Amino acid sequence: MKVAFLGLGVMGYPMAGHLLKAGHEVTVYNRTAGKARKWVEEHGGAMENDPAAASKGAAIVFACVGNDGDSIDVATAALAGMGEGSVYVDHTTTSAACAEEIAGRAAERGVGFVDAPVSGGQAGAEKGALSIMCGGSNADLTTVSPVMDNYAKRIVHIGPVGHGQLCKAVNQICIAGLLQGLSEAVHFGSRAGIDMDRVREAVSGGAAQSWQMENRWATMNRGEFDFGFAVDWMRKDLRIALDEAGRHGASLPVTALVDQFYAEVQESGGRRWDTSSLVSRLNKKPS
Amino acid sequence: MKVAFLGLGVMGYPMAGHLLKAGHEVTVYNRTAGKARKWVEEHGGAMENDPAAASKGAAIVFACVGNDGDSIDVATAALAGMGEGSVYVDHTTTSAACAEEIAGRAAERGVGFVDAPVSGGQAGAEKGALSIMCGGSNADLTTVSPVMDNYAKRIVHIGPVGHGQLCKAVNQICIAGLLQGLSEAVHFGSRAGIDMDRVREAVSGGAAQSWQMENRWATMNRGEFDFGFAVDWMRKDLRIALDEAGRHGASLPVTALVDQFYAEVQESGGRRWDTSSLVSRLNKKPS
Amino acid sequence: MKVAFLGLGVMGYPMAGHLLKAGHEVTVYNRTAGKARKWVEEHGGAMENDPAAASKGAAIVFACVGNDGDSIDVATAALAGMGEGSVYVDHTTTSAACAEEIAGRAAERGVGFVDAPVSGGQAGAEKGALSIMCGGSNADLTTVSPVMDNYAKRIVHIGPVGHGQLCKAVNQICIAGLLQGLSEAVHFGSRAGIDMDRVREAVSGGAAQSWQMENRWATMNRGEFDFGFAVDWMRKDLRIALDEAGRHGASLPVTALVDQFYAEVQESGGRRWDTSSLVSRLNKKPS
Amino acid sequence: MKVAFLGLGVMGYPMAGHLLKAGHEVTVYNRTAGKARKWVEEHGGAMENDPAAASKGAAIVFACVGNDGDSIDVATAALAGMGEGSVYVDHTTTSAACAEEIAGRAAERGVGFVDAPVSGGQAGAEKGALSIMCGGSNADLTTVSPVMDNYAKRIVHIGPVGHGQLCKAVNQICIAGLLQGLSEAVHFGSRAGIDMDRVREAVSGGAAQSWQMENRWATMNRGEFDFGFAVDWMRKDLRIALDEAGRHGASLPVTALVDQFYAEVQESGGRRWDTSSLVSRLNKKPS
Ligand SMILES: NC(=O)C1=CN([C@@H]2O[C@H](COP(=O)(O)OP(=O)(O)OC[C@H]3O[C@@H](n4cnc5c(N)ncnc54)[C@H](OP(=O)(O)O)[C@@H]3O)[C@@H](O)[C@H]2O)C=CC1
Ligand SMILES: NC(=O)C1=CN([C@@H]2O[C@H](COP(=O)(O)OP(=O)(O)OC[C@H]3O[C@@H](n4cnc5c(N)ncnc54)[C@H](OP(=O)(O)O)[C@@H]3O)[C@@H](O)[C@H]2O)C=CC1
Ligand SMILES: NC(=O)C1=CN([C@@H]2O[C@H](COP(=O)(O)OP(=O)(O)OC[C@H]3O[C@@H](n4cnc5c(N)ncnc54)[C@H](OP(=O)(O)O)[C@@H]3O)[C@@H](O)[C@H]2O)C=CC1
Repeated sequence: MKVAFLGLGVMGYPMAGHLLKAGHEVTVYNRTAGKARKWVEEHGGAMENDPAAASKGAAIVFACVGNDGDSIDVATAALAGMGEGSVYVDHTTTSAACAEEIAGRAAERGVGFVDAPVSGGQAGAEKGALSIMCGGSNADLTTVSPVMDNYAKRIVHIGPVGHGQLCKAVNQICIAGLLQGLSEAVHFGSRAGIDMDRVREAVSGGAAQSWQMENRWATMNRGEFDFGFAVDWMRKDLRIALDEAGRHGASLPVTALVDQFYAEVQESGGRRWDTSSLVSRLNKKPS
Repeated sequence: MKVAFLGLGVMGYPMAGHLLKAGHEVTVYNRTAGKARKWVEEHGGAMENDPAAASKGAAIVFACVGNDGDSIDVATAALAGMGEGSVYVDHTTTSAACAEEIAGRAAERGVGFVDAPVSGGQAGAEKGALSIMCGGSNADLTTVSPVMDNYAKRIVHIGPVGHGQLCKAVNQICIAGLLQGLSEAVHFGSRAGIDMDRVREAVSGGAAQSWQMENRWATMNRGEFDFGFAVDWMRKDLRIALDEAGRHGASLPVTALVDQFYAEVQESGGRRWDTSSLVSRLNKKPS
Repeated sequence: MKVAFLGLGVMGYPMAGHLLKAGHEVTVYNRTAGKARKWVEEHGGAMENDPAAASKGAAIVFACVGNDGDSIDVATAALAGMGEGSVYVDHTTTSAACAEEIAGRAAERGVGFVDAPVSGGQAGAEKGALSIMCGGSNADLTTVSPVMDNYAKRIVHIGPVGHGQLCKAVNQICIAGLLQGLSEAVHFGSRAGIDMDRVREAVSGGAAQSWQMENRWATMNRGEFDFGFAVDWMRKDLRIALDEAGRHGASLPVTALVDQFYAEVQESGGRRWDTSSLVSRLNKKPS
Repeated sequence: MKVAFLGLGVMGYPMAGHLLKAGHEVTVYNRTAGKARKWVEEHGGAMENDPAAASKGAAIVFACVGNDGDSIDVATAALAGMGEGSVYVDHTTTSAACAEEIAGRAAERGVGFVDAPVSGGQAGAEKGALSIMCGGSNADLTTVSPVMDNYAKRIVHIGPVGHGQLCKAVNQICIAGLLQGLSEAVHFGSRAGIDMDRVREAVSGGAAQSWQMENRWATMNRGEFDFGFAVDWMRKDLRIALDEAGRHGASLPVTALVDQFYAEVQESGGRRWDTSSLVSRLNKKPS
């Protein structure tokens, strides 16, 4: 199938690669052209210098860029090149309002739209094992799912346009509270001077268990954060969640609080640290 | 082996049962004698009307009562009946200071001590699948572990006396933040009107995953809390965690906040509800 | 002096009235024309049906509308009618970025700009006793201060354009934490059953004293909130404060938390209640 | 009148001095005898080496020591020396339960009791301008008020025994939220780079005004905390407030949170800093 991929960042670069390896005819576009050139050298396929050119003739156009503004810019440009009956898939984490906005513009041109934020991080993108939460019509989902399958371990159709993004917000809300709880536990344990390896052995089989406990406990205890999902991205996502909450009359006290704790992490140099770096503001040594 | 079990509450009743079924010679004591009678009728074994009498001649005495005060009362009474070389095991969730206090009194009489709080809840106690976090000497652990094995799926020796209780505090700290995050996510999803079964399918395989998500998501979404680990117990445990934090110079902002949210749950009638009832204060309908 | 006043809401209506009473030649504009007609009937002066017409020939144009978007819309329309050397004064509470944006557009037309958010509420506007926090050049301040004096008890020049709005954000941040503290105190006192009139007598002369304690204690204790500065406005202002904080690398944990508590107040029917209604979510009776 | 004063700390030393200056016959006791000697050298009067001896024959015994435990120890010792019809006044900040406990023991000996925590700090004690919040009977209040007047600017009879302490808890709850709000405001302003002297001028006349703003703004902006009411004392008092809240079914989310922020201040070296040092954890420079 002829497809385009717009945005070859940490996530998009390997995702686009999986599509090519699966035999699709892939044209890529990246704002900074160097990355696109590198991608073509590594994988083959074609590149173009603007979204419209890259999207011309594609049955599906995938995008994975930055925030709401970026998403709308790239989509608007791409739609100009897309033909009726094609589908635009946005893997960017954005607001639901942004998804609806792009879907509206796509509809005007007879183009389908699926909001399809992902979880699984860089590792998931590279291994082709992302979870994808989708909003859109059944028809559009039917078109795009088999192609997304090349980098997904799980694709769930949540509901109409925007619901993929709302599902991603749910995901991030869960993580914020959970990571702060875990951070306080790790901080407490370190201050109390107990053997945290044994603690993990004791508690990881029960009601306190979490993916973060299994995957971040050791690094949090060692104060290592130089990997994973960056605090800057997390704050963007929490901002979206808090704004959506405002729209829907939901109250998210701990999410809002943790978002401010992340501000402290950013200020102490952690903009690119993994989200588990929440523990760093607690573990600070007296200066 | 001749053993005693003191406190036949929700947890102790089935735990003592497992010991008898495993062939140990069990004498039970319960403050309210009716429960002890019922236990003996159901399981066989013997009962006594005070802790000292029940503990006389026992190689190991197990207790599972309420809070610090209860724990010290029962232990003090029991130690009067215990012989040199025997071991006292406290399954109650208490402070580390309480464990140290009892260990000291035990030592004066040549009795060993293990603090051995459990997780796994009523179901874990009944199925004999508790996780037990232990503080004490290697020698005492070696004595008591094979017996505890009858109701444990996991026994971890964390460190010296008190470290079992500190480990339990870590467990509860993890849960407090995690459950508030989950509550906010469930609340957000319900207000946003998305299909929460599909959301769970999408998010439960990744970084937001937790035991609570797997085991409480459906009931939280339905507003069912009439089971599980009671809010009153949780507040007792969080109080312990916050006091220990004060002692060790740790700061637990979200734990302290969630503890206050539990106060609101208690006031709205939820003293015996499961800890996942945190979501109820968010989901309240306009009155 | 020939002046215009745009936006005759709760605040603007009496402010514009003070200008007329002071002898200025006032032309008013209000989106909903009925309010402008009522104003002219009551005070005299002139009205126009669009901002540009109202602003034509005015030496100073004052506006007091809703949020950032409203502010930019009204300013853009008004500037089209304003002559070189005139000054636009925005009394709306907006972001500093919004102030800078309007100042930029004004400068292009040779028009001065002052951001001049106010505090003092409806009562302050009616009595002509507002505090005005200004951002702009000395020259522009010199032009507009004598005119604003007609409804001000205090005019402070904080700094360049935007600094008036940042000062207002400081004001609202102070209030959010303070009112939550006061709410918890009132809630605590009512649950503990102590005589809150005597408590106020005892504590209002010392380190716990605040304007809110002096002016809201009695109504908070009685659960009366049908007056004052509305929760909806407060959330708008806290949103601005939190966004500015993000821009400047500041962390506002309690402000963010209280903002979410206000979401609960809104949901329980309090969108138009006074900001002291924070106490209502604590004092809820078990349902 | 023959009186005794037990505890010559920061508060008690000058309070006892005012009594002597007013012509009362004062016997003092202090655990560390050196302070009592110094006091007698400075003021005259008598000293004794234990509370009972100091209290012998006194019509009123005043105490101002540390926490609940200290309070009960000193009171118990003193009561042994007190005669029927005398009154014991406890100026220590304690729990209401502690006040009731001491009142009960006093009653057994025919001794009256007034809980009389103070506010106003060291300066208030030295100037004789404390606010005193009292719990006790009308008769006991009538006896002790004229004597306390020598160091009070305000004496309020809140209610029966314990209500003085509950009133003090209300006072501290107000301050915790208020100071955190003020800290966030000061932190925000410093990051935003606005002129904080002018901001204070603009906001201190309105709804954001507070005693803390008037008396701590300048020092908070300069990062000076080497004076005032110590963080260690504040945490003791907040612990009392949170415990009382638990007893009365009140929820104090921000009080609990701020208490944990104070833990961070303690860890960074601020145990003896003024309570306004909350701002220090926000203003930390990237390390
Ligand atoms: N329930 C759960 O899911 C879990 C509980 N725990 C912990 O286990 C402990 C027990 O919990 P659980 O079994 O649920 O509690 P229950 O309330 O069901 O049982 C408490 C038991 O302790 C006895 N008891 C309490 N105080 C005294 C006292 N002063 N003197 C003598 N006996 C006393 C009670 O006797 P009587 O029958 O006379 O009241 C009863 O047998 C607690 O510390 C709890 O935190 C830990 C993990 C999970
Ligand atoms: N109320 C208070 O106590 C205080 C309010 N403020 C701030 O002052 C501002 C005004 O508040 P208040 O007077 O209470 O608000 P109101 O809602 O009473 O009035 C708002 C005014 O703005 C007009 N308006 C809003 N949006 C637009 C638009 N897009 N185009 C044209 N006109 C518009 C409204 O017109 P229409 O009549 O057609 O709706 C109305 O005249 C707000 O920024 C508020 O935060 C500051 C301090 C205290
Ligand atoms: N400082 C302040 O600004 C304010 C303090 N308070 C409250 O007043 C009380 C006293 O505060 P402050 O004067 O500052 O405290 P200090 O630490 O300066 O003094 C405490 C006094 O109590 C004595 N003391 C403490 N424990 C015992 C004990 N177990 N037996 C005998 N004597 C004891 C100390 O004796 P020794 O000299 O031997 O140590 C000392 O005289 C506290 O409850 C505090 O919360 C209330 C309002 C303001």
